[in-house]
Amino acid sequence: MSITFPKGFFANGIHCGIKKEGLDLGLLISTCVAKASGMFTTNQVKSPSVVITSERLKLGILRGIIANSGCANACTGNQGFLDAEAILDELGSLLKEDSKLLGIASTGVIGKRLPVDKILEGLPLLIDGLSKEAGTLFERAIMTTDRVVKEVQTSFFYNGVTVRIGACAKGSGMIHPNLATLLCFITTDMEIDKELLKIALKSAVDVSLNAITIDKDMSTNDSVIALANGKADNIEIKETSEKGFVLFRDALKEIMIELAKKIAKDGEGAEKLIEVEVIGAETEEQAIRMARAVVGSNLFKSAIWGKEINWGRIMSSLGANPDPFDPQKVSIFFGDVKLVENGVGIDFDEHRVIKILEGKEVPIKIIVGEGKARGRAWGCDLTPDYVFINGSYLS
Amino acid sequence: MSITFPKGFFANGIHCGIKKEGLDLGLLISTCVAKASGMFTTNQVKSPSVVITSERLKLGILRGIIANSGCANACTGNQGFLDAEAILDELGSLLKEDSKLLGIASTGVIGKRLPVDKILEGLPLLIDGLSKEAGTLFERAIMTTDRVVKEVQTSFFYNGVTVRIGACAKGSGMIHPNLATLLCFITTDMEIDKELLKIALKSAVDVSLNAITIDKDMSTNDSVIALANGKADNIEIKETSEKGFVLFRDALKEIMIELAKKIAKDGEGAEKLIEVEVIGAETEEQAIRMARAVVGSNLFKSAIWGKEINWGRIMSSLGANPDPFDPQKVSIFFGDVKLVENGVGIDFDEHRVIKILEGKEVPIKIIVGEGKARGRAWGCDLTPDYVFINGSYLS
Repeated sequence: MSITFPKGFFANGIHCGIKKEGLDLGLLISTCVAKASGMFTTNQVKSPSVVITSERLKLGILRGIIANSGCANACTGNQGFLDAEAILDELGSLLKEDSKLLGIASTGVIGKRLPVDKILEGLPLLIDGLSKEAGTLFERAIMTTDRVVKEVQTSFFYNGVTVRIGACAKGSGMIHPNLATLLCFITTDMEIDKELLKIALKSAVDVSLNAITIDKDMSTNDSVIALANGKADNIEIKETSEKGFVLFRDALKEIMIELAKKIAKDGEGAEKLIEVEVIGAETEEQAIRMARAVVGSNLFKSAIWGKEINWGRIMSSLGANPDPFDPQKVSIFFGDVKLVENGVGIDFDEHRVIKILEGKEVPIKIIVGEGKARGRAWGCDLTPDYVFINGSYLS
Repeated sequence: MSITFPKGFFANGIHCGIKKEGLDLGLLISTCVAKASGMFTTNQVKSPSVVITSERLKLGILRGIIANSGCANACTGNQGFLDAEAILDELGSLLKEDSKLLGIASTGVIGKRLPVDKILEGLPLLIDGLSKEAGTLFERAIMTTDRVVKEVQTSFFYNGVTVRIGACAKGSGMIHPNLATLLCFITTDMEIDKELLKIALKSAVDVSLNAITIDKDMSTNDSVIALANGKADNIEIKETSEKGFVLFRDALKEIMIELAKKIAKDGEGAEKLIEVEVIGAETEEQAIRMARAVVGSNLFKSAIWGKEINWGRIMSSLGANPDPFDPQKVSIFFGDVKLVENGVGIDFDEHRVIKILEGKEVPIKIIVGEGKARGRAWGCDLTPDYVFINGSYLS
């Protein structure tokens, strides 16, 4: 129940019948109107749920979000807008809140209408069960092919108060952000200016959700929404130079990276988490892009699944990515074992590398030059199960 | 033996021990020095074999090419250059030809040195067996994970002479050109200016090898090399406006598209060929890029393997590709059955669509707007076998 860890947040999740079974409708609410910021898919095909919520977030405030799994409400035309608005209107009226202060996030099959009647029917039960404890039900209600709940939380002391942050997300296919290719909700009780919330969110997403890839497929529904309700009662943070901002931003970065790794590890069919760190790039952005190019290669990912030491596929993926580097300056490490120096394979202890490949987490380090920047990206192995899962998604 | 179909070309293929078993060394020779043109991988990490051959092709002439499978001679540093040159020097001396008029192409595992001794030892046998008939041995010697030989040929009459064109290629993973992510050799006995050969080659590659994708992985070794030896005895083609040029270019395009489809169909682990045609784009280039974005999506490919009607993944892939379009103007057809109109799903005969998905070739048509351009791209389904093959590539 990370999502309800900060003060003044309540949530719930129910089964209303969008999916055949399992929780499929969730509600996250702040006790007061919260500062809010969001980042959304850059896919040209956007779900009406995304369009409506991103539009409402322009005010920078939100009271709560309704989220559903089982139906993406994408490629539903104008009807998709009417459906989402009908749900939000009814929710506002039941909560006695301006419906413009409510957001919606959807995930699931594309091209199907939301079953509005079932959702409206479920709303009273959903609201009735709002509590701290039901945070986990919310976290489960947004899951699709996810095998595990993905949640993180942290807190820090600042000027005599405790600030709490919680977050949860659903993966686990169509994960190649820009943006996050997933639903992710962040709550905090920090009192923070809405522009600063936006800055902190972007800097955290850039190194976390935007640094993972499962399958290079970008969704129509990616939404990351952060709510800050001020219930920690700190003096409002107004400048990026304030210590409170730095503490908040860094704490957010840290848990978002943790969350991103959980998403990558739970990629569809995945057996292993792969972490690729690129060192010696010109900028952090480049380093992350290069790392993500490697961790996104089907061939590389298949090799990792097969526990094969095929560093050639790392070189090849680096080279296929447009960021320039000198292949003759590349070193590659699996764990702490160096396999490549100056772009050429060297002798190494095969036994030790196989041990690393047998682990649940495979760390790869690549030195690409003498630049000062580094960056990490995460992904997972490509397994036969990925194909089985995605060959029978609708069934 | 398509590759030796045109007059004045001989070839051979042998097993020299680069691979444990199977043919692994091939030689293609023209009886006289031929006009030559090549296109190579745009990967920043290039095999010395690629660097040497593309350098030599700057003269626009070549006598022949030696090609090997089992070892990519990539990420081999300076030694990789010395190895390739030693082979070419010895080959030149045995053929009594300037070794600068010989090219080399390699495919296989990255990071391993070419076994120069074994190759040198094999050269006399390789040369000794040169013939028209041994063209198929050459075509087999370049194969890696390919299940079938991929060859095409055509001929046309022009000004009283018969012009012949032949081509062969190896796939079948790391196929996401720009360029072709494969080895491809084209022979013709047409007498043609070398600049025109280059123009015809580029226009054919753009709509064929550059319009396929197996796994979005681009190789370090892609090489397409065309040789035109003039043995058809036509008057040399010198202008793009000549009828002979148009005939040649169109014939080349046609067989290269046929070859590209064979490569896509034989993608690693593939069970089906997928053809995606995009209609109504602004330019042919955009149309091909959009078609390739769809046919390259892991999720879409998995759905096709599972015979699932998941057109949402088509919309999502189109939207993730940067070329602009209006989602509300999109129509999608599986075969001749329309599933989507104005970006929204419509009722359709599911039974007929399932029939189409059960076929060995799945044709998808997408109207993206009212532009005048159209383009096609080819790929294959993503199957558990792709992962099995690439998880045990080195074994």
